[in-house]
Amino acid sequence: MISRVKAAVAQLVGGTASSFSPGSCPESSLKFKYSRPAFLLLGPEEIERAADHSSRPVLLSGQDRRKRRKRLLPWDTGYAEVINAGKSILNEDQAAREIVCVEKGDRKNSTEAKTVKGDGRADKERDGLQFHYWALFDGHAGTDAAVMAAKLLHLHICEQLRGIIDVLRDGDVPPPICLTSNDGAARGNGARSPPHQGDWEPPTDSESRFLLEKEISHEYLVIGAIENAFRQMDQQIEREQSSRGMLGGCCALAVVYFLGKIYVANAGDSRAILIRNGETIPLSNEFTPESERQRLQYLGYLQPHLLGNEFTHLEFPRRIQHREIGRKMLFRDYSMTGWAYKTIEEDDLKFPLVYGEGKKARVMATIGVTRGLGDHNLKVHCSNIHIKPFLSCVPEVKVYDVTKHEHGVNDVIVLGTDGLWDVVSDREVADTVISVLSDCEPDDPNRFTLAAQDLVVRSRGTLREHGWWMSEDRLGSGDDISVFVIPLYGHT
Amino acid sequence: MISRVKAAVAQLVGGTASSFSPGSCPESSLKFKYSRPAFLLLGPEEIERAADHSSRPVLLSGQDRRKRRKRLLPWDTGYAEVINAGKSILNEDQAAREIVCVEKGDRKNSTEAKTVKGDGRADKERDGLQFHYWALFDGHAGTDAAVMAAKLLHLHICEQLRGIIDVLRDGDVPPPICLTSNDGAARGNGARSPPHQGDWEPPTDSESRFLLEKEISHEYLVIGAIENAFRQMDQQIEREQSSRGMLGGCCALAVVYFLGKIYVANAGDSRAILIRNGETIPLSNEFTPESERQRLQYLGYLQPHLLGNEFTHLEFPRRIQHREIGRKMLFRDYSMTGWAYKTIEEDDLKFPLVYGEGKKARVMATIGVTRGLGDHNLKVHCSNIHIKPFLSCVPEVKVYDVTKHEHGVNDVIVLGTDGLWDVVSDREVADTVISVLSDCEPDDPNRFTLAAQDLVVRSRGTLREHGWWMSEDRLGSGDDISVFVIPLYGHT
Repeated sequence: MISRVKAAVAQLVGGTASSFSPGSCPESSLKFKYSRPAFLLLGPEEIERAADHSSRPVLLSGQDRRKRRKRLLPWDTGYAEVINAGKSILNEDQAAREIVCVEKGDRKNSTEAKTVKGDGRADKERDGLQFHYWALFDGHAGTDAAVMAAKLLHLHICEQLRGIIDVLRDGDVPPPICLTSNDGAARGNGARSPPHQGDWEPPTDSESRFLLEKEISHEYLVIGAIENAFRQMDQQIEREQSSRGMLGGCCALAVVYFLGKIYVANAGDSRAILIRNGETIPLSNEFTPESERQRLQYLGYLQPHLLGNEFTHLEFPRRIQHREIGRKMLFRDYSMTGWAYKTIEEDDLKFPLVYGEGKKARVMATIGVTRGLGDHNLKVHCSNIHIKPFLSCVPEVKVYDVTKHEHGVNDVIVLGTDGLWDVVSDREVADTVISVLSDCEPDDPNRFTLAAQDLVVRSRGTLREHGWWMSEDRLGSGDDISVFVIPLYGHT
Repeated sequence: MISRVKAAVAQLVGGTASSFSPGSCPESSLKFKYSRPAFLLLGPEEIERAADHSSRPVLLSGQDRRKRRKRLLPWDTGYAEVINAGKSILNEDQAAREIVCVEKGDRKNSTEAKTVKGDGRADKERDGLQFHYWALFDGHAGTDAAVMAAKLLHLHICEQLRGIIDVLRDGDVPPPICLTSNDGAARGNGARSPPHQGDWEPPTDSESRFLLEKEISHEYLVIGAIENAFRQMDQQIEREQSSRGMLGGCCALAVVYFLGKIYVANAGDSRAILIRNGETIPLSNEFTPESERQRLQYLGYLQPHLLGNEFTHLEFPRRIQHREIGRKMLFRDYSMTGWAYKTIEEDDLKFPLVYGEGKKARVMATIGVTRGLGDHNLKVHCSNIHIKPFLSCVPEVKVYDVTKHEHGVNDVIVLGTDGLWDVVSDREVADTVISVLSDCEPDDPNRFTLAAQDLVVRSRGTLREHGWWMSEDRLGSGDDISVFVIPLYGHT
């Protein structure tokens, strides 16, 4: 097993695509070398042992084995992870936990951001505003994209926030609609615009309609910054993938605690839930071929060349046989939620753009998630049809205003990759977490780590003769599983 | 006032567009002559009196003034309406209440449907399945589209359901994916299809993925039938509009009770709520430039020729002045929920595709709703830019399974055009309805009409010196207002 890992790591450092010559770009390659999250403080041997598919050891935050002492994550955040049961050599999940200071810096050095040591409390009153950050990345078709995103996404968020830091600092007045200088963020000058002077004039029966000035809140600026950070991250991966022939992509789920609000940004099928007073509240939606079917079909309908004459944007409940032409079959197009019968034509024999159900649903028979980072080189097998145009790198961002709620000692946010959520329900996750937390003293800083551990152990299950089982008749997850348990009490 | 109405009705019968020669097509025109809902049983003079903007009389169902007797709607459904305060000469709302028998008929006569007299109970066991139907249509830019839809939409729904009646009748087994004969609905033959035989082959690592057969429920067939009925209705209006130069469009909200389930189909900004055990549950979403901003921007981005070189798909919080080129202004594109700053370019001086807030939000500075029927000839003022490509005629259909809930004597569904919802909240509507219903004997068949009346009277307000007021400081609705109150107890 370990030798397999070694070979894989060596291959990864040298690049995964055949067009790449090992050694031609070692520094750049090393930058994104496969590893486990830095905060796990693992040595090379531990990283190898972690990849043992037969034992699937659960790794926890807070354990510095080399120095034989505890080093908990800021906020006593709990983290646990486990590798898959053999579906890929390496653990394709990655995780990050950072405190980042958004200093207004020299633009020339703007790609650098200052991460804060400790729990960041001492820095709160400094010049720069800071944010807390947790993220999970679930890679596919390789580990490169997830590794890159885990190392860099928070820096892109920092960079985007830096561009609006003066506006955000001035929290008592709405953001100016138009900035008056190149860099600073002064007030809007209040001048109202006349209608557009062109051939066409908007109707003037209600002139005031065109003189409105929409008020944008600071919260929407932060959302926009996070959305753009994901886009920047995706473009950076694109540059790496094109220059180094890198492959693969990843789902990304990031939580940002900034100026009293929690922003949950999700692109993919990882999920976040809030457990408050024993109740579960979803903080994210999943983006899959099923949940985004209509968006995908609409694009295929409007730009049929993207379907490469091999796919149809229509959905059918099964493949059609040639001899069925002329008969009526159930279908639905981009605008429908329901199903109806249509007479089958030659064109309907093409493979459906979106096909399959649940975990087996695929875009162009290839990929099972529709948002995320990377996948710039992803093509349909044995074809020249690109899949990236159908994928979105933009997350959905949900905002949770922590100041509007009282939080108890057992109130937490749980982040998990799909390895967790595929086998346990929100309710089971909440019951597990509450049970573990209640069994510990409320001031025990380890209890969130124990809760994360319990979630991973439970969803992995135990090894029996034929695989991993949660109970007699319930299969455990054979996927990589990564979980954060983030306490809210005393921090927000 | 009455003379104004007379002139308008005359103009309408002769066609509204200048290109139409009065008298050239009188039968077709008369078919869609302006009137009030047939179930109100109004004579011509009453229709004229109803259009008096100065008194705004509230009209109720169940009152046959000519025969001086009560004639309640089936299910004792309550209905009330009032004209606007002067924004258009005629009441642009329309309403329909029907019981329709879906008989399997001769396809040659398929445009005819049988509506059922009385409450339809005697027909339940007949050959055809029947559905109950309530609908509101809120017209704009004329009354033609709303009048047509009120007369015909239920027939299109009937026609669509007729096509699948054998499948629906066979309710114990899932609908066949492929019909084995031209007309009938036999079982699917169970044969599985091989993968598509073309240049490209889907990957075969998990062959079973491509051999799946998705199970579709009867419910989704009914949803598909309703969606297609809206589309057919829209196409029929298109034919009328092109042949007779008809103008205008309408929002459509339809409720269908069929085979134990209530289907709420909405295209526009009318709304439906359920009041159950004192609680309010929304049964529809509104489709406006704000709620559908991203869909509209995405289409403008993918097909920029639809913007006619006059509009930009980007959203800005206000108009931009030429001298602001080069400065940074807040914007968002189709993929963003948040806002960010961008440097203004020449192209950004174009008018935003989606502009304005709340009730003043418009597509291309023209229309304030994004789904509905008609508007095929709608263009941007003084231009050749068509707006219809940005509008959708497909409703969102929500399903309420009445068999899964116990309903009390005060449990109802309330349908209202935006004239109602613009001035009263869901909670206020529920409180009003519950208060009226509780004041009546539970077996009083008039109480739902009284509830509808109270809602309309309350949201219209009373006339004072300067307009209609609900209270000292709260304006009533100056719009047309139409309301159905549909009881659930004892019928579902």
